[in-house]
Amino acid sequence: MMLDIDNAGSNRVDQIMERSWAAWQDYRQRPLSVRAGLMREIARGLESMGDDIIRTAMRETNLPEARLKGERGRTIFQLNSYADACERGDWLELRIDTADDQRNPPKPDIRKMMVPLGPVLVYGASNFPFAYSTAGGDTACALAAGCTVVVKAHPAHPDTSDAVAECIRQALDTCGLPTDIFLHVHAQTLEEGKALVTHPKTRAVGFTGSHLAGRSIFDWANGRREPIPVFAEMGSVNPVFLMPEKLSTDAAEIAKMYALSITLGVGQFCTNPGLIIGVESEGLDQFLSSLSDWIRKIPAAPMLHTGISRSYETRRSAALDQSDVTLAAVGLQGTEELHGTATIATVDGDAFLSNPLLHQEVLGPFSLVVRFRNAGQMLQIAQSKEGHPTCTVMGTSDEITHHPALMAAISDRCGRLILNGVPTGVEVCLSMHHGGPYPSSTDARFTSVGADGIKRFSRPLSFQQWPDELLPDALKNDNPMGYLRVINNEPSTGPVNL
Amino acid sequence: MMLDIDNAGSNRVDQIMERSWAAWQDYRQRPLSVRAGLMREIARGLESMGDDIIRTAMRETNLPEARLKGERGRTIFQLNSYADACERGDWLELRIDTADDQRNPPKPDIRKMMVPLGPVLVYGASNFPFAYSTAGGDTACALAAGCTVVVKAHPAHPDTSDAVAECIRQALDTCGLPTDIFLHVHAQTLEEGKALVTHPKTRAVGFTGSHLAGRSIFDWANGRREPIPVFAEMGSVNPVFLMPEKLSTDAAEIAKMYALSITLGVGQFCTNPGLIIGVESEGLDQFLSSLSDWIRKIPAAPMLHTGISRSYETRRSAALDQSDVTLAAVGLQGTEELHGTATIATVDGDAFLSNPLLHQEVLGPFSLVVRFRNAGQMLQIAQSKEGHPTCTVMGTSDEITHHPALMAAISDRCGRLILNGVPTGVEVCLSMHHGGPYPSSTDARFTSVGADGIKRFSRPLSFQQWPDELLPDALKNDNPMGYLRVINNEPSTGPVNL
Repeated sequence: MMLDIDNAGSNRVDQIMERSWAAWQDYRQRPLSVRAGLMREIARGLESMGDDIIRTAMRETNLPEARLKGERGRTIFQLNSYADACERGDWLELRIDTADDQRNPPKPDIRKMMVPLGPVLVYGASNFPFAYSTAGGDTACALAAGCTVVVKAHPAHPDTSDAVAECIRQALDTCGLPTDIFLHVHAQTLEEGKALVTHPKTRAVGFTGSHLAGRSIFDWANGRREPIPVFAEMGSVNPVFLMPEKLSTDAAEIAKMYALSITLGVGQFCTNPGLIIGVESEGLDQFLSSLSDWIRKIPAAPMLHTGISRSYETRRSAALDQSDVTLAAVGLQGTEELHGTATIATVDGDAFLSNPLLHQEVLGPFSLVVRFRNAGQMLQIAQSKEGHPTCTVMGTSDEITHHPALMAAISDRCGRLILNGVPTGVEVCLSMHHGGPYPSSTDARFTSVGADGIKRFSRPLSFQQWPDELLPDALKNDNPMGYLRVINNEPSTGPVNL
Repeated sequence: MMLDIDNAGSNRVDQIMERSWAAWQDYRQRPLSVRAGLMREIARGLESMGDDIIRTAMRETNLPEARLKGERGRTIFQLNSYADACERGDWLELRIDTADDQRNPPKPDIRKMMVPLGPVLVYGASNFPFAYSTAGGDTACALAAGCTVVVKAHPAHPDTSDAVAECIRQALDTCGLPTDIFLHVHAQTLEEGKALVTHPKTRAVGFTGSHLAGRSIFDWANGRREPIPVFAEMGSVNPVFLMPEKLSTDAAEIAKMYALSITLGVGQFCTNPGLIIGVESEGLDQFLSSLSDWIRKIPAAPMLHTGISRSYETRRSAALDQSDVTLAAVGLQGTEELHGTATIATVDGDAFLSNPLLHQEVLGPFSLVVRFRNAGQMLQIAQSKEGHPTCTVMGTSDEITHHPALMAAISDRCGRLILNGVPTGVEVCLSMHHGGPYPSSTDARFTSVGADGIKRFSRPLSFQQWPDELLPDALKNDNPMGYLRVINNEPSTGPVNL
């Protein structure tokens, strides 16, 4: 059923959240195998939707066919790999300490596992209509954790979202699960979202989007009588540190890599490298010249929607208008209003450090090359207060070794530290951490990519002195599923020996 | 060095946090063995302080000698067992995914581990001058995680806190570590604490105390430009659910257990059972009568300080003044102003459900017995919005099995679920979860007791495409420490086979 909050108001929000809550009372009790089965069925459904859904998404997002097919593949991989992780059960963080009646006072039997938080509100993301929207990473993690999901469709791709929601409903039906485990709503404004975030039955929020919206959601959630966790991925400038020795030999090659990374997906990734930091040198001149040559050949391409393209033009112009900022290169111009033109600007280190506007993200195919006088000055920007999803260092092993303070400062301000690569391309795997210090995310302790993201929607619960037959299966003595558990401080996949 | 914020203001706070920050640049790089060595040295120091520190604490807290000696033992055990957990390294959550150059696009090598957050502000707790104050659980966890610590001494036991701080400084000296890894400050008001919480170099806060103070700290921390995690343990009423069949056979025995639990430590524990819920029956009458008999024999005892004892009298009187609340039993009266008198009151279920004042904690030796008409009504209170550190069920296996909705509702509102026991007594072990849903804590996802509490002060960081020699030791291929790591989705204590 489609639920439209426009003509509804808070009564309708109340109905939605009460339905999600009621369905949670069923779903939270379901074994991991049932949750994983549902996720795999959704993945199969997405696969079987064929090209229709791709065409719908192309129309709504302006993204090219190959990108959307790739993104659907990523979404399917997420659902299947998180289903595997869900069943493996490592995320349950099972701990068992057995009783000791001989101790004074007697030591009780205590066993701990992760349990689901409850109904999770997921905001669809405009830049990932599949992978971080309706059946995306947040939904997959919440379902794995045993939470019900309410998706607020992104208004830029309502038809795509509706079609994916229908696919999830069919999967629930196929699996014989209550349809209200997943609810899909349309809401046009931040305020309408607020009613969902602040509803007492909402237990957590997943969001990918702008800082303005993400911070609002965070503030609403923390202003509640009972605050709830918000996992807002808000992106940032993803600084790249070009070390001089590396640049002296590889400037041209690095320039080519970065021309591609800056313009990938018309720069609409939260890992887009928007800030490139180097030290005045022949290598840096060569890098900038080579990067500019590449950028001038790259054609403009349509951005996701009018809001993003207007914001890109406004922020790009604002950056270029700052004193001491020089335009280095512009890509081939487009003919349509939505087209985003690749742009490289440059500024010297002192001007950059003294102008906070230049530290802000310009979401789109834009990057600012900052020229510092020496490597010591690079430390200043590394120590700045902004957090990022990623930081990248282009350097030789010697340069890494000889700048421990710089490396420590860089590592403190990001969630993923890349050496001699590009930040775009977020691998879906357990070792991925996607979610850096604020403002790149509202909770740097949790990842939104990779199966560790399941933990976002769960919390620990201890059982004290429960007899074996009343314990949840994962904590029973015989461990039939062979979960990895820590028993009396020792990891074990075996049974509890009493 | 003693730092007194009274005569200082924000400049002084700035100096303190900058010193802690500078020391962190050293301490964060120290191997786990050095951190564990420091913690064990602090434990040795506490042990060797002998009776002097016990006498100081007795004078400042009114707690009896045996309790304080026991609490020091607990503190030493925490430091030593968290040191062991720190070195075992499970909390590092090591994940390695190796590269696959054959894949299209090539799969990068990514490795993830937990890294320290930075300087942690710890508020000393009035009710645990050792175990949750200066060298208590929060300090131990922060040091294990690689964070520096600034302790704000609790004003009710400044001399005890000073003495323990001196012991920590000596341990730092013995270990050859910078003294600023641990700083100790006195501040008298909430506002003085605010300057510490909101300082940009403060990265997390640990707190144990009242809801008023805990919520203020939480709001300050989330109102910052860069919000930081707050782990505030604020206690609650810890409901006990008396199931009728169990009560029909064991009423007298349960009454005896609870008379002790309610009055343990003059009721000044955050796990004190302040609410006992039963169904009208002969068993409940017998329980109340037997509990009342025990309570009448229990002598009043001095509470921690004037603030707590006045608050106890005010809240106890307010509860007793509510319509339909009946005084059931009062313990032996004390002669001193600070004495807290054991008190049991009773109320019927409808009056309880309609009166929010009765849902509030009365910190002290007070418990309210609520008499419901039937077990269905118990579900209503279990579904209420308050969260608790613990919930307890006194029931037979049949009763647990036959009330799944009640059990699900109870488990949703607590961090630890006890069967046929008492909530007081918080075991220090890995399976312990201490920190229930709000308002019992500000973050139900993290425990303040047990070595999993180390995770509160760390966050994940991914390393992409770093050569082996530049990686942190814990992520290197050969795994010399034998840490448990997840390599390509498989748990392993061995090396990475490339």
